[in-house]
Formats: sequence, structure tokens, C-alpha cells
Amino acid sequence: MSADLTDLVARGVNGSRLASRHNALAAIGALHPQGLCREAFSAADAEARGLICDWAAASGYVASIDAIGNMFFAHPGADPTIAPILIGSHIDSQPAGGPFDGQFGVLAAWEAFEALHESGLPLRRPVEVAIWANEEGSRFQPTTMGSAVFARRLPLQRALAATDTAGRTVAAELQRLRASLGEIRDRALGFPVAAYVEAHIEQGPILERRGIPIGVVTSIQGLRWFTVEVAGRTGHAGTTPEADRRDAFVAAHNMIRRLRDLMADPEDVVRFTIGRFEVHPNAPNTIPGSVLFTIDFRHPDAAVLKRLGDQVEQICREAGGPQCQVTITETLDSPPTILDEELAGAIARSADELGIRTEPMTSGATHDAKYLAMVCPTAMLFIPCRDGISHSVLEHADPEHVELGTRVLAGALGLIASDGR
Amino acid sequence: MSADLTDLVARGVNGSRLASRHNALAAIGALHPQGLCREAFSAADAEARGLICDWAAASGYVASIDAIGNMFFAHPGADPTIAPILIGSHIDSQPAGGPFDGQFGVLAAWEAFEALHESGLPLRRPVEVAIWANEEGSRFQPTTMGSAVFARRLPLQRALAATDTAGRTVAAELQRLRASLGEIRDRALGFPVAAYVEAHIEQGPILERRGIPIGVVTSIQGLRWFTVEVAGRTGHAGTTPEADRRDAFVAAHNMIRRLRDLMADPEDVVRFTIGRFEVHPNAPNTIPGSVLFTIDFRHPDAAVLKRLGDQVEQICREAGGPQCQVTITETLDSPPTILDEELAGAIARSADELGIRTEPMTSGATHDAKYLAMVCPTAMLFIPCRDGISHSVLEHADPEHVELGTRVLAGALGLIASDGR
Repeated sequence: MSADLTDLVARGVNGSRLASRHNALAAIGALHPQGLCREAFSAADAEARGLICDWAAASGYVASIDAIGNMFFAHPGADPTIAPILIGSHIDSQPAGGPFDGQFGVLAAWEAFEALHESGLPLRRPVEVAIWANEEGSRFQPTTMGSAVFARRLPLQRALAATDTAGRTVAAELQRLRASLGEIRDRALGFPVAAYVEAHIEQGPILERRGIPIGVVTSIQGLRWFTVEVAGRTGHAGTTPEADRRDAFVAAHNMIRRLRDLMADPEDVVRFTIGRFEVHPNAPNTIPGSVLFTIDFRHPDAAVLKRLGDQVEQICREAGGPQCQVTITETLDSPPTILDEELAGAIARSADELGIRTEPMTSGATHDAKYLAMVCPTAMLFIPCRDGISHSVLEHADPEHVELGTRVLAGALGLIASDGR
Repeated sequence: MSADLTDLVARGVNGSRLASRHNALAAIGALHPQGLCREAFSAADAEARGLICDWAAASGYVASIDAIGNMFFAHPGADPTIAPILIGSHIDSQPAGGPFDGQFGVLAAWEAFEALHESGLPLRRPVEVAIWANEEGSRFQPTTMGSAVFARRLPLQRALAATDTAGRTVAAELQRLRASLGEIRDRALGFPVAAYVEAHIEQGPILERRGIPIGVVTSIQGLRWFTVEVAGRTGHAGTTPEADRRDAFVAAHNMIRRLRDLMADPEDVVRFTIGRFEVHPNAPNTIPGSVLFTIDFRHPDAAVLKRLGDQVEQICREAGGPQCQVTITETLDSPPTILDEELAGAIARSADELGIRTEPMTSGATHDAKYLAMVCPTAMLFIPCRDGISHSVLEHADPEHVELGTRVLAGALGLIASDGR
């Protein structure tokens, strides 16, 4: 039965239609010679949404938008009293991003949605395509703003009040975007959802390295962020003996040495990154008086996240003192997200029935799926991206993987939409 | 004989005259509530030089200025055909400096000069007070510009063409400064000098810590500067396994770990400072794609400077590779300067005869004396400064030390000026 279902929907996926939509959407905000700039609520974001509304209108689908700018596309025959299955992702990009991060997931969902309806499969529940607003968070913070507001983890008013560097608010930019879309239905924020499935590029090198075309995401790893401020004392590099120095750089170097020992992991599961590191006054012949650095620490296991993360403060204090004053602020503590096993099983089954190899994996990056998982069963699938590169104009995904991922999503959707959910 | 000479000149030092000149000069460019901003060739520098010219005029001394703005003050009876003994320092300051770095040496020289002539001691050679232009180099690079040009180690035209951040040249600013001084004699660049003696605050904590009021400088330590550029690859902090990272921060951290091991010195003579350290793109969740850092390495012993400094490049290459590309540039290689033993002996003898404890020491900072030592026998004496702090508005020297240092300088000058030099 399931093999038939999968096949029924998946074979409806039209690779050339998908590729032509990809090219049309990728042209909006395109950078030259490559890459994409389509930041949230920008003119390019509005234009991209307008193009998708045109596709919807051509197919008779019903578009709606909620108060933070998330958009939904439904089949006109859908029963609005039944909680839908959502499939989707985002179409905003980093300021110098690529046309796969987010866009792939939206277009795969769109194609799967079309294939599902074209298959004539009787559905227990309606399916809608979701486009989450401002996933990137590069222009307006925080990231995954639309899904966070949808899941009621971020107050709407706070999100609307966020400003970009030019001082424009989300509220004002969203109003302009919405006006550009013409007539569009209002949608309630955080309406009930039966399930959510998102396809995305991996944004890491694992699938490519292993030669696996589809990753079935079982969890999104947890994340703890720390900011460490080290206050020492400036001094003359030529005249100050080591015994008299309160060198903030040396203190920070010692802290990071011990943190790297703590985080060392032969299994290569721990993700530990010092991404920001600033020295003052930053002059060659002056002993640094202060240093600020950040710690980005991620792990799929909440216990490890707690055990290692809870040692950060003490290690920094011990390694910094007594020469320097150390201030440690934990700026983010986001637990791991366990995705739905049954939905993950449907993705694996779909791939299996299409003869495509999969591997279970943890998502290193956060996604809108993290917030959806707080309100409904949620699953994700990944396709490889070249050299693991994303958030870069060099981002690329193989068209073959794009199509395979879309087929697997469509097949899984057939399984999910026709079951008892 | 020498005890008499020392006493004859040193007892002529007038502490209250010295203090009142200090206060008058420190008021020019004073910052509030403390500190000094009197950058080279600024209006404050011109005003300070003008005040000193007024003092000279009142005493009948003859002022002259050379093509880079170094000024000299001679007794009217001095024989211009005999190479003079110079005593002096500088009166320009860091943008947020203090009223002792340089100023102490000029005022000590001025007072010693007055005491010498007031003593009536018959002189074998004329003595002149020198004020070297742009010692600090904060506004116009390089540092010790005036003495470097005087010693013919920096071409005059290159120095005159140096610009500040507003695009003004040394040539234009010097012309304006000179015009503000009215009538003043031209002096040849790099005229023959019989000897040079400079008093200065230590700018380090050693004398204060040991309770010694006078340091006799035996050498100015050598200095090697390196700039290390590390090129890795940016990546997503959440998705990129350690095995796939080319993390420029980690590579730089490893290099500095090995460099710190190399430079470790139980004797605390090596001076090793990472003062500038910059990360790109410097975002918390992005693996650093590149790092630039500087190494300031100093030592009084040329052999140690060579042995340790020559290992820097190989250590950086080894610790950085193969993940990252490393470019090492040696931007400065300045050998140690050995000062004149006989002149240093005169300073020690002067202090000894005045009952003041001295200690031989190496200068951690560079001074105009470094360039003078290339053209004539040269000596320096240091007095303590509070907490070793200089190049800071917190810079302070005890008035008692200022007066003691001036007496020792005057006594030494009596010895030197009356001998066969």
C-alpha cells in the first residue's frame, strides 16, 4: 500500500517545472555573478512572495498571511475546520547568500503540494504550503522570527518593533510588503497544525562526504552561547615585565586553551566555535587592556550540553584570574529539539521505496522546524550542498539532489496525508 | 675632584624653579581632569616651544631649529666650531599622555644647563639643550622622527611628507609652527655632537618596585615585529564538523600557544606581546575565515633576539598548517643599542656622590637616544613613574624623583663637560 502511495505522489514531481520555478525565483534578488540578496521584508522578499502568489492564482490556490508575515497556500477544496499538515520553509536570504537555503524547501513543498493534488489521492487532512517570515534574522533579529511568533515563543509586538540598521521597523516594512501583494486573506497567528515537514539543504558537509543524497533529521542540536569579557590593564609592550602584566589577551588565550581541552571530542560531535574575538586597544606595542569573545557551543544531547556548558564559567574564571576580571554572560540556552519519529519514518520509507539511500542525522543549524516542533509533530529532510557551504554566494546544490529531495518529500507527504493524522 | 664638580653643579639645581617650569609647561595641552595632549607639530607643541624660547630669551640663550624641527639652545659664549655635548629629550606627547614622558627630560636638561652655567665651571666643550621633534609618532609616523632624521637614518624628505589622519603633512605643520616662533636661527641637520645624555621616566615598574630612585641605562633593548596573517575558510558554527574546519582562529591560537612556550622566560627578560588580533568575519556563529595578529618581541641581547625571533616563522607555519595558509611578515628588526659605558659611569658616579642609589638597567622602550647613539657616545638615566604607567593620562612621577634625577643629570654633566671630551 505505502509503496503505491509513495510512487503515486512522487512520480507526479515534475523536474523541469521545479527547475524552471527555481530559476524564476532565484532571479529575484540575484547578485552578480552569483548568489542572492533577499533579506526579510525587503523589496526582493516582496517580489518573491508576489511571484509565488501569481503561481497560486494560476492554480486557483488560496493565499493567506498572518500578523508577522508568514504566508500559507491552501487548496480551495480544503476544509478550514481541520488542522492542516504544513510543508514549507523560507524564501528570505542572508545579505550575501545563495538560492537554496530556504528556497529549496519552499519549492520542494510547492512541487510536492502540486503532485499530491494532481495524484488525486484522497486526503484525510488538508495540506498547506508555509513560507515562514524572516528565518535568517540578518536584517531584523532574532532569527526564525516568523516561526517563533507563530509558536508563541516570541511576542508579536516585540517582533514587529525590531529595527534594521537604518531604523526601519518590521511593522512598517511588513505593511509595505503586504500592500504590494494586493488582496490577500488574513490568517490567525498560531492556528492548530497537525504536522510539519520541511526540506532544506544540509548547510554542512556530511551528506556530500558520505555520498548519501537524503538525510533524515532526527533532531536539531541544542545550543549555548556565551559572551566572555576580560578586563586587564594596558601597558607598554617594551617596558612591562611579565610579572607586572595584567594582559587580557594572555588571560583569554589561557581560557580558550582550557575550553578547547574541555570540548575536545574524538567522536567529533561537539561543536565549539570562538567566532568573535576583539582586543582593545588593539595596538602592536600595547598590552591588551580588554578582550571580548563569544563561545558558540552545540550538541545534540541535552546532558552533554549541560555537563560541558556548565563548566564554561568556572574555567574562564580560573584561567583568567587573578590578573584579570572576567565577566561571563550566557546569551542563549536553547535545548536540543527531538523531531517526530513517525514522520521521520515516513521520510525514510518514502526514500527507501524510491530506492534512495538515507541516513539519520542531527541538524547542526537551527530551522523554523525547531519552533514548529513545539506545537506539532515535525520532521525535516536534508539534501547535500556543495562543500557544505551555505550563507555564502558560493552556496550550491546539485539539481539531481534537488529533484530527489523533492520526490522523497512528495512521497512522504503522500504517506502522511493519507494516514490517520 | 669629581665629588667637588658634581656638588658644584648639582647644588645649583633649583627645585622650586624646576617645579614652576614643570607646571607652566604642563598647562600647555593639558587635558581635564588630568593628562596631556600635545602631539607633534600641533598648536600645543608650538605653544610649548614658544614658552621655552621665552625662557631662553630671558636668559640670553641662543635658540636654533633644524629642517625637521629639532630645536637647540646654546649659551651665547659657546664656540660654534666645537662639537657640543647635547642634553635633552622631547616635549611632544601621546594624544592621551602625561606631562613627564619627554617633558621631564627637557626640563631636567634645562635646569642642569642653567646650574652648569651658574656654577661658573670652566667647560672644555659647549653644552646645548636639545628638543627632538616628534618622538611619539602618534600623529605622524614613524616614532623618534626628529632624532632619526638628525642621525641620517630617515630621509628628511620622507619625514616631511608624512601625513596625519586629516591629510596634513609634517612639512606644512612644521612651517606653521616655525612661523609662530618668530625669529629663530637655522641649524644644520646632523651637526657633529660630542656626547648626548637624556633623562626620562622609566615607563615601566622596575625602579618603583625595587625602591631605586635612579636607573642608569646601559642599553636599549632590540625589537622585532611580525605580522601574521592566517587564511582559513568561514563555515557554519553549527553544521561544520571539526574534521572539516579550516578555522583561522584555532590555527592562530595554536601558533600563539607554541610561541608563548618558545618565549617563556623564568628570568622575565623576554618581552613578548600579542597586541593586535583581528578576526574576520567576527560573527559568533561563523567559523573565522581569517585572522591577523602582531608579535612585538624585545630583548636586550642580540643573540637571543636572533635565536628566538628566527623561530617565529617556522612555528607559525607548522602550527597553522595544513588547514590554514600562513603569511608572516617581519615589519621591524631593530638591534639592541649599547649605550656608552664611560658616560653611564659619569651618571653612576654623580648619583653616588650625591648619596643616591642607582641600578644599571635596560630600556624597554625606544628613545631618541637610540638614534643619537649612532652618531655619538650616548647615555640615559631613568627615574621611576607611578605603577610603571606611561602613555596614559594616569602617568605620574614623584616630584622628589624629578628633582633627584635632575641633580644627578646636572652632576653628571659637570663631570662630562669638564673632562677632555
